[in-house]
This record gives sequence, C-alpha cells and structure tokens, in this order.
Amino acid sequence: MTTRRQSTPNSSRRSDASRRAILTAAFDLVGEVGYAKLSIEGIAARAGVGKQTIYRWWPSKGAVLFDAFLALSEGEEGEAALPDTGDLEADLKTVMRATVVELSDPRYDEPMRALTTEIAHDPGLAAVYRERLDEPMREIKKRRLAIAQRAGQLAGDLDLDLAVDVLWGPLLNRWLQRTGPLTPEYADNLVKTALNGLRPRG
Amino acid sequence: MTTRRQSTPNSSRRSDASRRAILTAAFDLVGEVGYAKLSIEGIAARAGVGKQTIYRWWPSKGAVLFDAFLALSEGEEGEAALPDTGDLEADLKTVMRATVVELSDPRYDEPMRALTTEIAHDPGLAAVYRERLDEPMREIKKRRLAIAQRAGQLAGDLDLDLAVDVLWGPLLNRWLQRTGPLTPEYADNLVKTALNGLRPRG
Repeated sequence: MTTRRQSTPNSSRRSDASRRAILTAAFDLVGEVGYAKLSIEGIAARAGVGKQTIYRWWPSKGAVLFDAFLALSEGEEGEAALPDTGDLEADLKTVMRATVVELSDPRYDEPMRALTTEIAHDPGLAAVYRERLDEPMREIKKRRLAIAQRAGQLAGDLDLDLAVDVLWGPLLNRWLQRTGPLTPEYADNLVKTALNGLRPRG
Repeated sequence: MTTRRQSTPNSSRRSDASRRAILTAAFDLVGEVGYAKLSIEGIAARAGVGKQTIYRWWPSKGAVLFDAFLALSEGEEGEAALPDTGDLEADLKTVMRATVVELSDPRYDEPMRALTTEIAHDPGLAAVYRERLDEPMREIKKRRLAIAQRAGQLAGDLDLDLAVDVLWGPLLNRWLQRTGPLTPEYADNLVKTALNGLRPRG
C-alpha cells in the first residue's frame, strides 16, 4: 500500500528547502568556527541564500542555531520515548551511555557548547530553550520514570523533575566544565549511584 | 602576644596593591558589562594602572578573571571546611542553601557565568580551573563526605568524586541553563534525594 503525499506549492517547497539549508549550514558552521565567529553572513554564504532570507525568519544567529538544534531533535528517530525493557537501571544506563557518546562526538560537542553558553548569558533564549527543547525532552524522561514509579521501582513521593536533574545534571555539568572524562563507566556509575543514593542500603 | 610582620620592599608592596586593584576591577567590570565587553583596557582604566602592567602578569582577560575568582575563594572565611555538626543531611543543606544564595546574588551571577562559559569553550582554561579551583574545592567537599563515610552514614563503596557530582551537578546545571528557579526548597530536596536515592527505601 502506498501513501499519497499532498503536493506542496512551489514557493512553499522552495522555502522549506532554504530553511533546511540554513539550519544545516548554521549547525555545521558553528562546529567549524565556534559561536563567536558564527555570522549571519557566513550562514547565508554556506546555505546559498541571501542574508535577507535569514533575517526574514530569524532575528539573530542564536535564534537560527536554536532552530537548528530543534530540527535535529525532531528529526531523531527514537527520541519520542526512552527504552523500556522493564529494567529501569539497564534502560537508564543505555540512555546515559548514548548521551556520553553524543557529547563526545566532535560534530555535536562545539555546537552544543555554543547553544548552552548562549543560554547561560541570554535569559530570553533560555526561556525559549526551556519551553521548546528542555521541557519536551524532560517529559519524555519523566514518562519513563513515571512507569517505574507506578511499578514501585522508584520512591512513591519522588519528584520526577528533581529525579531528571539528579540523573542528567551531573553528566551535563561534567561535560560542560570539563571536570573529568566522560566514559561509559561514568554513565553506569552515575545511574547506579543516583538510583541507590549516597547512603548505605540495608 | 603580637606577631611581627616581615616588612615588604616598597616595589613588591606596590605590585601587590596593583594586582589586587586589577583583580577587583576585573570582577566588578564583568558583572557590569558582561564577559564579551570586558577588555584589558577597561580593567586597566578601572584599576588605575597601565595596560602593560596587566599584560606583564596575564596573557588574556580570561586569565585575569580566573585569578580574580581564585583570590575571592582564597579570601573567603570558612571555605577551608564544610560544617560538621554530625548531621550530614543538615550540614549539606546548609552548604547547598548558601550556594543557592551565592548563585542568586547579581554581584556573583554574571562573573560566574562568564567564567563558566569561558571554561566551556577553552580547554586550556578548563585545565587550570580544574587544578586550581575545582580540585581544591572538591577536596574540601570530599573531606566532609569521607568523615560521614567512616561513620557509616554513606555507602562504604561510594565513589566520593561521583558523590560530589551528584550533589552539586544538578544545582549548577539548573543555575547555568536556567531550567528552573533556585530556591532553598530545591536545595533541601536535592540533598535529601541524592542521599536517599531515587529508589524506595525499605
């Protein structure tokens, strides 16, 4: 069985193609030259569009970069749910190891640092980030944790937002501040320690 | 009983005064204008010294700012040890609430963001930061945790470096990425959740 695709008017299809080219150019360029040297001119040249095309849709290079990340996360397969094998610890280790791999990939490292540090200095961008990227990803994580909580695998009175912070915060902080190497072992130990807590278990 | 202080040669005393004036100027200025607009010229003007005086001691504005933070942390009373009342949870809540107050203080917020994001983009500065600021502060935290571990209040096989990450990482990440408000309640819940873990306790 085939699915018939609604045909798109030419102008809109051209817009879509330009938009995708701009976002790809922004993401690639920031990884090559860093955020400080990223410019609307550079993005326009790389994408093969005029500067005005970019300014029509985005007010700043930060806004373009942000949408580049958003497009990336929307395009990712399997992003809509965390794995659920029934074994919470194993599933979280799988996710955390994947995050370590992503953060260690030079293709993502510099663009993600650029976005993170822009957010750190720009409360407006931080609010958009929170609403459009952090909250949706947080909901996905909380859905998996809620399943575990209902199954009695997590404390009944646990604040799932705080649980997300305790699981992912240490990894992101270690990555950003370069306070130690990111390894699969670190990911595993972090998950185990966050689940069990620092106190002894009887 | 009085302590006789070795007299300092005039030139060295003048150097000390200039050095302190430069570090104070760098710290104050970055809070007022932000890191991007911080300049060696601006620091020199504020400190009342020539640009060359700064360049004689520091290669970059990032290096000056870093030493300003180091001087600040060396000057702080009570930094050498975390409180130890015997009640680990209460002591950690005291420390974490103080961190929330510090991170929420406009006088510290912008300089600390500037330093943190510089570190994120500069592996060389990150290495100096790790050696001269992160490691010494981490040792202070680990000393308090080691006392608790010897008393059986923390798991015997707990990695204390990871414990520091699990306690402080979520707070720093929330502050930097502005993903939620920093409140005393958040500090308390973070400490409690990190100590008890996400799993139920029997």
